[in-house]
Amino acid sequence: MQVDAYAITAEGQGLEPFTIERREPGPEEVLVELMYCGICHTDLVVANNESKQAQYPVVPGHEMVGRVAQVGEGVTKVAEGDLVGIGCIADSCRTCDPCHAGEEHYCNSGFVMTFNSTNLAGEKTWGGYSSHYTIHEHYVVKIPEGLDPAGAAPLLCGGITVYTPLKRFEAGPGKRVGVAGLGGLGHLAIKMAKAMGAHTTMITGSPNKIPDAERLGADDVVLTSDPDQVAAHAGSFDLIINTISGEHDVNAYLPYLSRKGVLCYVGAPQVPLPLVMGLLIFGDKVMAGSLIGGIPSTEEMLEFCAKHNITADIEMVDIQDVNAAWDRIEKNDVKYRFVIDLGSLS
Amino acid sequence: MQVDAYAITAEGQGLEPFTIERREPGPEEVLVELMYCGICHTDLVVANNESKQAQYPVVPGHEMVGRVAQVGEGVTKVAEGDLVGIGCIADSCRTCDPCHAGEEHYCNSGFVMTFNSTNLAGEKTWGGYSSHYTIHEHYVVKIPEGLDPAGAAPLLCGGITVYTPLKRFEAGPGKRVGVAGLGGLGHLAIKMAKAMGAHTTMITGSPNKIPDAERLGADDVVLTSDPDQVAAHAGSFDLIINTISGEHDVNAYLPYLSRKGVLCYVGAPQVPLPLVMGLLIFGDKVMAGSLIGGIPSTEEMLEFCAKHNITADIEMVDIQDVNAAWDRIEKNDVKYRFVIDLGSLS
Repeated sequence: MQVDAYAITAEGQGLEPFTIERREPGPEEVLVELMYCGICHTDLVVANNESKQAQYPVVPGHEMVGRVAQVGEGVTKVAEGDLVGIGCIADSCRTCDPCHAGEEHYCNSGFVMTFNSTNLAGEKTWGGYSSHYTIHEHYVVKIPEGLDPAGAAPLLCGGITVYTPLKRFEAGPGKRVGVAGLGGLGHLAIKMAKAMGAHTTMITGSPNKIPDAERLGADDVVLTSDPDQVAAHAGSFDLIINTISGEHDVNAYLPYLSRKGVLCYVGAPQVPLPLVMGLLIFGDKVMAGSLIGGIPSTEEMLEFCAKHNITADIEMVDIQDVNAAWDRIEKNDVKYRFVIDLGSLS
Repeated sequence: MQVDAYAITAEGQGLEPFTIERREPGPEEVLVELMYCGICHTDLVVANNESKQAQYPVVPGHEMVGRVAQVGEGVTKVAEGDLVGIGCIADSCRTCDPCHAGEEHYCNSGFVMTFNSTNLAGEKTWGGYSSHYTIHEHYVVKIPEGLDPAGAAPLLCGGITVYTPLKRFEAGPGKRVGVAGLGGLGHLAIKMAKAMGAHTTMITGSPNKIPDAERLGADDVVLTSDPDQVAAHAGSFDLIINTISGEHDVNAYLPYLSRKGVLCYVGAPQVPLPLVMGLLIFGDKVMAGSLIGGIPSTEEMLEFCAKHNITADIEMVDIQDVNAAWDRIEKNDVKYRFVIDLGSLS
């Protein structure tokens, strides 16, 4: 079927109306009528070809929420009318060890991204800046009751991206967690770390972020421009989630870690960052990276968010205003995630 | 008492004969008549003031083996005539949490290095390029029977430096451990990882290191100049112990790691190393640092080495030849650790 979408058709172009083909759902597939799609910075990086992997035309979008409109005859996971989400993962082999372990994003055959990718049948994937999505039932997740559907959309990528390392490195009661960077990822990290029971601290160089950090649930803030605050927090964090994807001084964060503390990166700066290795050695410290999470973890994260009433703080935009929204993202001018109201497509 | 030593008396000078004062052992102290002292690269870095912390005159040396010559009346840990070792740690508060946990090198009052440091009584520490050492009994460790005393000397710093991360990151049966850099630390890392039961691989750019790596116990070698070998080992290591203290490309090592694998640094390059953060994120990988180990761990390591008959491969030198030995260390011309025969002092 032909459906409405927005695409970038060539490098340097803006997003514009575009028509794509969505397949009829196969026996194990579902057709989702999309309601909302979050705008993640990765959309810009990929579709503007900053990462040199754009395959134009590109329909971006990988934080989708919608209702199941049609199911194949073998589908058991969801039913017509269910509110569901689709995140980064559109396909994987479902037979290898990582897939069996629920880590489809490390599928041995390579996981298929929901946009600008090629699925295992050789078809191009078109993202969520569109009215519908056809996908194997394995990759849709139910949105638990009580979660605002629009605010839940950014959980499908941003949420799982920070939830995974918070769980892996055991954020919880008695632990001190710092969050660096207050954007789409950072504001969710604060909410989740606090809900897990960790003492949660915003680490920022901007005094104007203090009120928001506290409103989001941070127990306190380290202002990195204040040497007294920096000194007072030296050696104090068990875990820092660094969400800063721009160029910055990684060495400034290591002194905040406690012995064997972990500085975990979830957003990849596009340039190499000089690292002073002695800052890792003295204190037996750890740097780590973390990439989204698999489908079972995404379901667990959504249940966690429903229980603690966590959604993203969003600004809703119509699809016609998406280019302006992208411009504002480049200027960090959004609190904290744009979500496209896909009702505006028709 | 006045004892013989070798010191650097000013920046830019070589080592020369020097007389130092060793105190009579207090009630809980022991006087050790030193037999051997390993030459660790840190001796050069500190005493040549590369790390800008030399307090001249400097008597280097922190890998000592000798016999207990005299004990204070309250000493219970060792007796006259015991063969003992002294490593990096000369003093600590012995009352704080890290000290109680046997991690004296993270003493809250700061641990006192065995040379070029100031102990908690305010006295300068002179290192092991000397005939005797006076120290609290807590910081001497018994050398287990069966270990060659000269070959055991480098275990007191080099050995514990690599043993600690091998244990921390669970080298053992079913694990694949890589070792980068084949020097004092690297050759001990190969021996220990193999003795722990891990599949042990030397990672090197030098074909001429292959025979030695295999003789030391490596199961195989990755020659980093061979793209086929590099590709064949991609994603295969649970742990890489990186012992390279010179400038190098850290990003070349991350692709060898398996999912959640650990690249652990034990020697600190003197310059920042550019790190491509995406190499950590894709694969949920880890970089870590590790600093020596505490006294109980050192004792455990020595027992492990005695059980598996592990000592350093050494080249023995008289103290009169120590400057030539240092020159050769700067050229990586030693297999694999110089040890000073301190009998040559008198």
